[in-house]
Amino acid sequence: MPDAAIMPAVIERLKAAVGPAGVVDEAAAMAPYLTDWRGLVHGRAALVVRPATTAEVAAVVRACAEAGVGIVPQGGNTGLVGGSVPDAGGGTIVLSLSRMNRIRGLDAPNFTITVEAGCVLQAVQQAAETARLLFPLSLGAEGSCQIGGNLATNAGGTAVLRYGNARDMVLGLEVVLPDGAVWDGLGALRKDNAGYDLKQLFLGSEGTLGVITAAVLKLFPRPQRSETALVALVDPAAATRLLADLRQATGDAVTSFEYIHRAGFDLVFAHIPDSVDPFATPHRHYALVELAGGDADDGLRSALEAVLGRALEGGDVHDAVVADSGQQARRLWALRETISEAQLKAGPAIKHDVSVSVSRVPEFLERAGRAVAEAMPEAIVVAFGHIGDGNVHFNLSPRPNADPAAFLARSEAVSRIVHDIAAAMDGSFSAEHGIGVLKRDALRRYKSPVELDLMRRLKAALDPDRIMNPGKLL
Amino acid sequence: MPDAAIMPAVIERLKAAVGPAGVVDEAAAMAPYLTDWRGLVHGRAALVVRPATTAEVAAVVRACAEAGVGIVPQGGNTGLVGGSVPDAGGGTIVLSLSRMNRIRGLDAPNFTITVEAGCVLQAVQQAAETARLLFPLSLGAEGSCQIGGNLATNAGGTAVLRYGNARDMVLGLEVVLPDGAVWDGLGALRKDNAGYDLKQLFLGSEGTLGVITAAVLKLFPRPQRSETALVALVDPAAATRLLADLRQATGDAVTSFEYIHRAGFDLVFAHIPDSVDPFATPHRHYALVELAGGDADDGLRSALEAVLGRALEGGDVHDAVVADSGQQARRLWALRETISEAQLKAGPAIKHDVSVSVSRVPEFLERAGRAVAEAMPEAIVVAFGHIGDGNVHFNLSPRPNADPAAFLARSEAVSRIVHDIAAAMDGSFSAEHGIGVLKRDALRRYKSPVELDLMRRLKAALDPDRIMNPGKLL
Repeated sequence: MPDAAIMPAVIERLKAAVGPAGVVDEAAAMAPYLTDWRGLVHGRAALVVRPATTAEVAAVVRACAEAGVGIVPQGGNTGLVGGSVPDAGGGTIVLSLSRMNRIRGLDAPNFTITVEAGCVLQAVQQAAETARLLFPLSLGAEGSCQIGGNLATNAGGTAVLRYGNARDMVLGLEVVLPDGAVWDGLGALRKDNAGYDLKQLFLGSEGTLGVITAAVLKLFPRPQRSETALVALVDPAAATRLLADLRQATGDAVTSFEYIHRAGFDLVFAHIPDSVDPFATPHRHYALVELAGGDADDGLRSALEAVLGRALEGGDVHDAVVADSGQQARRLWALRETISEAQLKAGPAIKHDVSVSVSRVPEFLERAGRAVAEAMPEAIVVAFGHIGDGNVHFNLSPRPNADPAAFLARSEAVSRIVHDIAAAMDGSFSAEHGIGVLKRDALRRYKSPVELDLMRRLKAALDPDRIMNPGKLL
Repeated sequence: MPDAAIMPAVIERLKAAVGPAGVVDEAAAMAPYLTDWRGLVHGRAALVVRPATTAEVAAVVRACAEAGVGIVPQGGNTGLVGGSVPDAGGGTIVLSLSRMNRIRGLDAPNFTITVEAGCVLQAVQQAAETARLLFPLSLGAEGSCQIGGNLATNAGGTAVLRYGNARDMVLGLEVVLPDGAVWDGLGALRKDNAGYDLKQLFLGSEGTLGVITAAVLKLFPRPQRSETALVALVDPAAATRLLADLRQATGDAVTSFEYIHRAGFDLVFAHIPDSVDPFATPHRHYALVELAGGDADDGLRSALEAVLGRALEGGDVHDAVVADSGQQARRLWALRETISEAQLKAGPAIKHDVSVSVSRVPEFLERAGRAVAEAMPEAIVVAFGHIGDGNVHFNLSPRPNADPAAFLARSEAVSRIVHDIAAAMDGSFSAEHGIGVLKRDALRRYKSPVELDLMRRLKAALDPDRIMNPGKLL
């Protein structure tokens, strides 16, 4: 933390760097920048700045670097691990990218768009749509999260199976480095082996190595047709077989493949108005499947029906509903997308963002389910998620008769159990949410000394004075 | 370079580390390891070792690290920039991965394969095929290049448009670090945001940061159907429009989209026996197109014909041949794949591996073509390549009456002109071949000081004693 005596001068320099429109220094106005949206992490800051240009970001970072003041970069502040909120010390500043929200350009024949970090994800999606193209990154917070934050945290979402994580959608970056220098890496090239691929350093590093100010993103053709089905399965292993069969039969046209345990639907039917079970009888395991293709995919529906027919005959599938309209498809998706909301209404939840190999998801569900039943019988396991990516949101809700406070008090102990099982299966304790502050202990526990040493070397090489997002990730 | 007096002791330690089967120390046996396959770079080495296990690699690296001896990792030695050959000093050793050639495992439901670095690319492709799956990396040298080298150089090849570069096909890595420690990053996860993505450091870093010893690779469904067409176009801009239309119409089923200027076909028809022009009349510009899909893609052929029909009517396309059989498709591909061989038979060639935005390829061809015609009228431009990735092999051959030696003597000057134009268009002077030793000067010329500084910091953080592939890349 900088010498208290130099702070006033630094603050004045920072205010001058961004001008009056970029300064947020009244307590009430600062408040939203100082806590995460779930209200789990509360911090303090000497100032919030909202620069409008890359040059202003550079001036802010340079001033902080010279004074040794820590910087917390912040996008839409929709993260789940407290990564974009300052610590309680009050000696750092928040650097909000929200005013840097221009689409700098769209190159349709190159299938790319160049955006500033503060663009809301939905605005990027819409800009692509106006050019009849698709930016496939999609997640619950897309109406308020910002693309800079998505890239700094390597966001996942619902289309990873087909299009990859946020990292995979990036061709170029512009980054303000911890000394205030600007790295212009805004190339729009699909192939470039001229030296180390520097953008990889900043993608997913949660603002600890520099501030992403702009990016060149890949766009894709918009699928002209899609098919959506909700499938009732005999067990999770049947889900992984169905996924493999669908990938084979459709030329890899599977865009989403979500697993939902019945417990999730029970919460939805109990707490979400107008939600209706599309099946006549309840089943234990479901998969929500989406296929998409271009005009040419005349055979998508018939391939889906053929695969489902074989799976019914083979005994993997109990029943299936294939949507006959866009409206019906949206209703099926709503069942999946309202699980978190229903879980919230049902009381406090203990959440896990685990990944293992796709092939080992059934084993993980079985082992973790058994361990939780033993250690915490007052919990209902609400497992759902992107099984096509091996990513399971293995969430726990209290049984109706359980005491919510006592339930939450067991959070750390039960998470340790769940994460230990994932680690023992070569899995990850943070598939898409990152580390921030909330998972730093887990990082230290589960990463090998060799790995932690490599990460620390990277940090020291790029940010030797440790001013970038201090106290996060490492 | 280490003290000459300590070398004999180091050599003995290295020989002991790999055992007799792993030692190559006779001049004749060492020779193939000391020169690149094009014969452009010749080096010397104190020893060639061929460890059989990761532990042996680690022992070799540890011994070298302690003695300060440089290590040149080598795979199939098929690179084009001299990156896997030692320098002329003779004070380094060559570490060949060729004995580490086991397939460690294949997980079909997870669509992954775990391979050692010394596996020949074709062996990886075949292992995938036996499980009815596809490993899509494909390039001319696939019968002898090794997967470790492919990953260390982030190989491109003919399927980048659909499947990405080698980097995009990797889920996990095992790496021996410059101090001899082993980083076990062999995760098979599609999503993992637990800390920095360390594998990205080593992919494409040409062995300058560590030795890749094994990898977990993504596999894909094998396309069940494909369509191949050779299209005669009015100009290169028509090619980029055709590509965009095909991507839109087929749900992104375009796996290859290669541009060929007539000059390349002229060489093929003149020098390759049994090669036949499939068109009745010559055209100036061609695209070789391949689409692929699963069983479901009944509409692939009709979509292709519809797009070509529209392009014919619109004036972008002069004529097109759509292959009616696998045999005809292979004949069309042979025309593209024998251009390099034909060019070799026509005399010495000056080669460029340039990339620009897909949308700017026509402008690049026009500007570079004009500049070369002016500076070097004795050259024929033989431009072809992966236009769908913006990657053009802008090669030059001497006109029949030109003096080959005088032609080659102009190599550096004309390459400077071509690379300057690519750089001025935000392009790359090395799209897929890397830097090695042959493009180090270009790296220094075209990369910004900020970028070079970042690369040097990375190198210093991971390999402070600079023993990994000394003299390469940076």
